[in-house]
Amino acid sequence: MYNNVDMAVSQNLVHRRRALAALLTERGADAMLVSDLTDVRYLSGFTGSNGSVLIWADDAGEDPLISTDGRYTEQVAAQAPELTARIARNTVAELARAAAAARPGLRLAFDADALSYAQYRALADDEALSGVDLVPTAALVTGLRAIKDDGEVVLVTEACRIADEALAALLERGAVAPGRTERQVARNLEWEMYARGAQAIAFETIVAAGPNSAVPHHRPTDAVLASGDLVKMDFGAVYQGYHSDITRTVVLGPPQPWQREIYQIVATAQQAGRDALTPGAALADVDAAARRLIEDAGYGEYYVHGLGHGVGLQIHEAPPIGATATGTLPLGATVTVEPGIYLPGRGGVRIEDTLVVTETGSRLLTTTPRDLRIL
Amino acid sequence: MYNNVDMAVSQNLVHRRRALAALLTERGADAMLVSDLTDVRYLSGFTGSNGSVLIWADDAGEDPLISTDGRYTEQVAAQAPELTARIARNTVAELARAAAAARPGLRLAFDADALSYAQYRALADDEALSGVDLVPTAALVTGLRAIKDDGEVVLVTEACRIADEALAALLERGAVAPGRTERQVARNLEWEMYARGAQAIAFETIVAAGPNSAVPHHRPTDAVLASGDLVKMDFGAVYQGYHSDITRTVVLGPPQPWQREIYQIVATAQQAGRDALTPGAALADVDAAARRLIEDAGYGEYYVHGLGHGVGLQIHEAPPIGATATGTLPLGATVTVEPGIYLPGRGGVRIEDTLVVTETGSRLLTTTPRDLRIL
Repeated sequence: MYNNVDMAVSQNLVHRRRALAALLTERGADAMLVSDLTDVRYLSGFTGSNGSVLIWADDAGEDPLISTDGRYTEQVAAQAPELTARIARNTVAELARAAAAARPGLRLAFDADALSYAQYRALADDEALSGVDLVPTAALVTGLRAIKDDGEVVLVTEACRIADEALAALLERGAVAPGRTERQVARNLEWEMYARGAQAIAFETIVAAGPNSAVPHHRPTDAVLASGDLVKMDFGAVYQGYHSDITRTVVLGPPQPWQREIYQIVATAQQAGRDALTPGAALADVDAAARRLIEDAGYGEYYVHGLGHGVGLQIHEAPPIGATATGTLPLGATVTVEPGIYLPGRGGVRIEDTLVVTETGSRLLTTTPRDLRIL
Repeated sequence: MYNNVDMAVSQNLVHRRRALAALLTERGADAMLVSDLTDVRYLSGFTGSNGSVLIWADDAGEDPLISTDGRYTEQVAAQAPELTARIARNTVAELARAAAAARPGLRLAFDADALSYAQYRALADDEALSGVDLVPTAALVTGLRAIKDDGEVVLVTEACRIADEALAALLERGAVAPGRTERQVARNLEWEMYARGAQAIAFETIVAAGPNSAVPHHRPTDAVLASGDLVKMDFGAVYQGYHSDITRTVVLGPPQPWQREIYQIVATAQQAGRDALTPGAALADVDAAARRLIEDAGYGEYYVHGLGHGVGLQIHEAPPIGATATGTLPLGATVTVEPGIYLPGRGGVRIEDTLVVTETGSRLLTTTPRDLRIL
């Protein structure tokens, strides 16, 4: 069952639509056809699997529209009561035609990453749209989504709490131990998240033991955890659409010197990355703050990915935090910081938290301790 | 861990690529850039989250290529050893340039539904591709995927077995009973599927009790199952990438006459739909065979969706079986048959199986009994 919207959420939705309207005005567009489903949800509250919204520029004096198909007639009325809904199978064509009918010859923006070539071609060839100027745009709503409002931070925080508590429960009852399989530990983690209110798991849970821990995105197998293994667990929960993302690496029994060494380097780098989170920081500088420490320790070639990414309605969203990222970190972004060292054939360590960027720096939303846990 | 390919799978992959090559020759294209990830997996075996393949037409005398980014260097070599891999971030641009370098001015087909407008624009504006004729195509690989080879049928069958056995286990131990919540039953079903070898759940499990059963795609809530409720369960498993899809509706305690009535109508319609499955049948006729019975019984307005859909590497794929579907049912398709009656505010019934189309008609892959189960 979907919930009806409450007042605070409704005000946030209005605010988001106004922010997009202002961007459209800046760009000289009359309206925008938004067809990415996550963006549709962000702007309208509607969570169905087919839908588009039409947002008008500031001064257009027209009301926003939403379109979805007949399966969702009741749902769209409940979730997006402030938007007039048009029921159609081809929601993109429906809203483009509605826009053209209201303002013949308008400049109609669309998301060039969300619209397929086939959808674009159909609009460009539609006689009902003759005279309409189709204006490709990139990442307008994605950019807005990078900055979370207070309500969104609450939901990400809740998703983080679920993940933290699930891991604590698992460790407490000894479920991460020699003799168990990667797959069993993964399923246990997911079960504990569901038991604590997760509506879904955030992504395919990673549990990687021994040499498998050296594979950054290992999928759990029937490999059996053994004494002496590093065990890397990367997982998260979804709560009301919002995701969490956390990685912890533990060791089964007394760590060998090389395990301690790389753990300590990653932990120090992760701290440096977290410390570098501050509004306005260049994304590449945040990445460099952590990467430098791993490179200086001689392990640069074994750290094969970026430092982190935005987290919200999607598990990976803006801003990316990596060596080649452009732009700066906005106040209110929720992001991960997750450096790692992966020694092929031996094992790897990654430590990851989800944080929110605040006026004074950042605040941890995942709170599981980061010292090396010996099981 | 990904598995290395075995010989039978490898031969199937070669066969699939040859079938696409023949389609390209028919259409006068020199090669095709395949960028839909499911299609990439189908043609190459590669399961990473970023990748494209380039397939040449029959007579081109060029070898197929695959491209993915640096995260997947080892994985692509293990999963697609017969294809030369090019490591790049922008796999579409990489392969288009490789094609143009091999055959300047070629006619390069692409999937108009898979390529975004932004990706298309970048290719069209790429100076390295000057003279290349970009040819939009629709559903070429999708059409091939509709017809399963024997190895694929084995995997769908296994996914169906997992779902059947999970439901049997749940019913056997009394887990679907008054006092339990929709969410608990959904999680139990998923747990049982994982315990039987599911690698993932096929889609968000639907458990809908009482009035909620009248919502076709209800999401499980904390609603408590009560005596007298219809309980609709729609779920499936993923096994080696292949999906199963089954729905059963049970009743908690002695059924009321209206519950018996709609159950019987749906069961009869579902049988009629299954009986109509035969190679070469018009898809709309298959839909009509079941729909007619529900309409004749006076419940036509309460059956608000199509009869079924293809199932394979995706939970919904070709062919669609609905009133407006064009085309015919191919031999070797794996499809669902799932009529329903949904009485708003009261309750609903859906009965769904996954079947394979055979030379003599069809064969059930989900085998849970279809008589009304009273719990």
